[in-house]
Amino acid sequence: METRITRLLGIEHPVVQAGMAGGPTTPRLVAAVSEAGGLGTLGAAYMTPAAIRMAVEEIRALTQKPFAVNLFVPEPFDPSAYDPEEIGASLAAYREELGIETPGELSYVQSFEDQLAVVLEERVPVFSFTFGVPEKEHLDALREAGIATAGTATTVREAVAVEAAGVDAVTAQGAEAGGHRGTFLGPHEGGLVGTMALVPQVVDSVGIPVLAAGGIMDGRGLAASLALGADGVQMGTAFLACPESGAHEGYKRAVLGATEEETTVTRAFSGKAARGLKNRFTEEMEGVDVPEYPVQNAHTRDVRAAAAKADRTEFMSLWSGQAPRLARPVPAAEVVEKTVALASEIVTWDGKEKGSGA
Amino acid sequence: METRITRLLGIEHPVVQAGMAGGPTTPRLVAAVSEAGGLGTLGAAYMTPAAIRMAVEEIRALTQKPFAVNLFVPEPFDPSAYDPEEIGASLAAYREELGIETPGELSYVQSFEDQLAVVLEERVPVFSFTFGVPEKEHLDALREAGIATAGTATTVREAVAVEAAGVDAVTAQGAEAGGHRGTFLGPHEGGLVGTMALVPQVVDSVGIPVLAAGGIMDGRGLAASLALGADGVQMGTAFLACPESGAHEGYKRAVLGATEEETTVTRAFSGKAARGLKNRFTEEMEGVDVPEYPVQNAHTRDVRAAAAKADRTEFMSLWSGQAPRLARPVPAAEVVEKTVALASEIVTWDGKEKGSGA
Repeated sequence: METRITRLLGIEHPVVQAGMAGGPTTPRLVAAVSEAGGLGTLGAAYMTPAAIRMAVEEIRALTQKPFAVNLFVPEPFDPSAYDPEEIGASLAAYREELGIETPGELSYVQSFEDQLAVVLEERVPVFSFTFGVPEKEHLDALREAGIATAGTATTVREAVAVEAAGVDAVTAQGAEAGGHRGTFLGPHEGGLVGTMALVPQVVDSVGIPVLAAGGIMDGRGLAASLALGADGVQMGTAFLACPESGAHEGYKRAVLGATEEETTVTRAFSGKAARGLKNRFTEEMEGVDVPEYPVQNAHTRDVRAAAAKADRTEFMSLWSGQAPRLARPVPAAEVVEKTVALASEIVTWDGKEKGSGA
Repeated sequence: METRITRLLGIEHPVVQAGMAGGPTTPRLVAAVSEAGGLGTLGAAYMTPAAIRMAVEEIRALTQKPFAVNLFVPEPFDPSAYDPEEIGASLAAYREELGIETPGELSYVQSFEDQLAVVLEERVPVFSFTFGVPEKEHLDALREAGIATAGTATTVREAVAVEAAGVDAVTAQGAEAGGHRGTFLGPHEGGLVGTMALVPQVVDSVGIPVLAAGGIMDGRGLAASLALGADGVQMGTAFLACPESGAHEGYKRAVLGATEEETTVTRAFSGKAARGLKNRFTEEMEGVDVPEYPVQNAHTRDVRAAAAKADRTEFMSLWSGQAPRLARPVPAAEVVEKTVALASEIVTWDGKEKGSGA
């Protein structure tokens, strides 16, 4: 199934596995998706440069096909604007229940420059990003290294900004999508636009290839996205419960047992809006005025880690899109193959032309 | 373009114009959509039985093709649970600005039984509804009268309830949709599921034909919906700016000039969650604890009417879906024809089989 996105990325099928940071995107998962003809993505935002390098080497040992590394574009933040005592108080009950102490010094983010340096040095085939647009010098360096780039947009405005910066492709992230909202211009509410509405409006406004994301779980979603004028899809939740995924087993079980009514958009875990399954933590934290990303993320890290260790999903971030009923615990290759096979039956897609709304 | 929905409703194309209550759905609009081979719908929820009868006669004078009447299923409400002084105080500044007095006795809703009696007596071809499921005796009477029925669902649970009641078809209303949310089981937040995610999950859970709604504006949206497994679409905002639409001219202009970032889900106008363009009223009323539907609706009626008369869109309910950039001020027949022509190019649809996700 050839589209502008398969030509740009050098892949067989227009199916990109989302860069789910924080565990799911093991080298095994990334390589399995790429081997099946899609584009696997290492969600490297929380990884040290050394860990990224090691993971890239592992991926390359498993596949010679293209893959992506995904990072978060840094935003300014000021931890001193928040009272650590107050933040600690909002989390004290959870620490007590999990039997852990309040942590001392916190580390907030990995250095984006250092992470990106690995991407450049390793000449990773594709670099994707979210939360903004990298600086010109970084995009120039990526271009010079022959690395294809893809940014994330949740509105037309953002898609236009991504294109204007010279990025090669844009992922239109609909409101259904699991995980962090990529919104970087204006409040996150403005970027909560459903995939069915967002994709054609983005397609009409940019010239670069568009990947549709949000609620896409199978061949029906791929076919629908191509019909809307997208050049391919990015799927996250669809790969979450695969055996190759490094997601916590309790997290996988929670997603496989969830319905479309059970997700919420919360800032409770990281300080940035993200869609995941409702649980005790999201519900109890609802009224709390949490600090911005990445401050809150750093403050909840030990709670999330201890909850995962104790298999207490009620305190874990259970990122999920709005179609968890369609998640399947099958090998990643099967997800890619079935998605493409079904979509090929539905849609008469042979390039951009048929999707034009003009 | 034949699907299960065209066979059920006796129409040529699987395109239903949504029952936008409160002005847009003039007999001219309804008839124009039906004449073009779609299904026009009279949004009759706020109309008296006599007005519905007159509109039905006008539609029949303009077309011999099938059309629908849409009503709100009544829900229990108690106006005495709210303090009219307090409600009046929250609206006083608007009344002052518009130069109107606080109204005396309020009428809350039209009698659903009396409205439905007209639908039965006139043997309207299709009856569609939202906000719940009619009582068994009403559905029995509709069936005996040979009237096809379609209910609205915002979750799988609701779609299953609609089917279990013996309704002929279900509209899966995604979060993108403009106007009132049809959610009737659980809080409206649980029913804010994007169309891309909702439709396949509903299709997998019911056997009756499914209409996709929410963010669908052209042939790309119809093709995408069929790809997701739906049997047709319901489009509202796509018909709002048509010359046949009775929407206020200021309202049409506002939608035609809006972007996908500018809608919000608000209870401010009616007490029930509905998606429309943000304006001064939705923003200023954000923190106000407004009474439930239809109490708030009755209390704001004079404000909305005076605002419309004075062309003050900042106090009008400007219901819109999340793809206003795709709205066009063209004849309704052109919307239907272009939608179908483009979709036919994109999708290899020839019935339910190709949309199956199994």
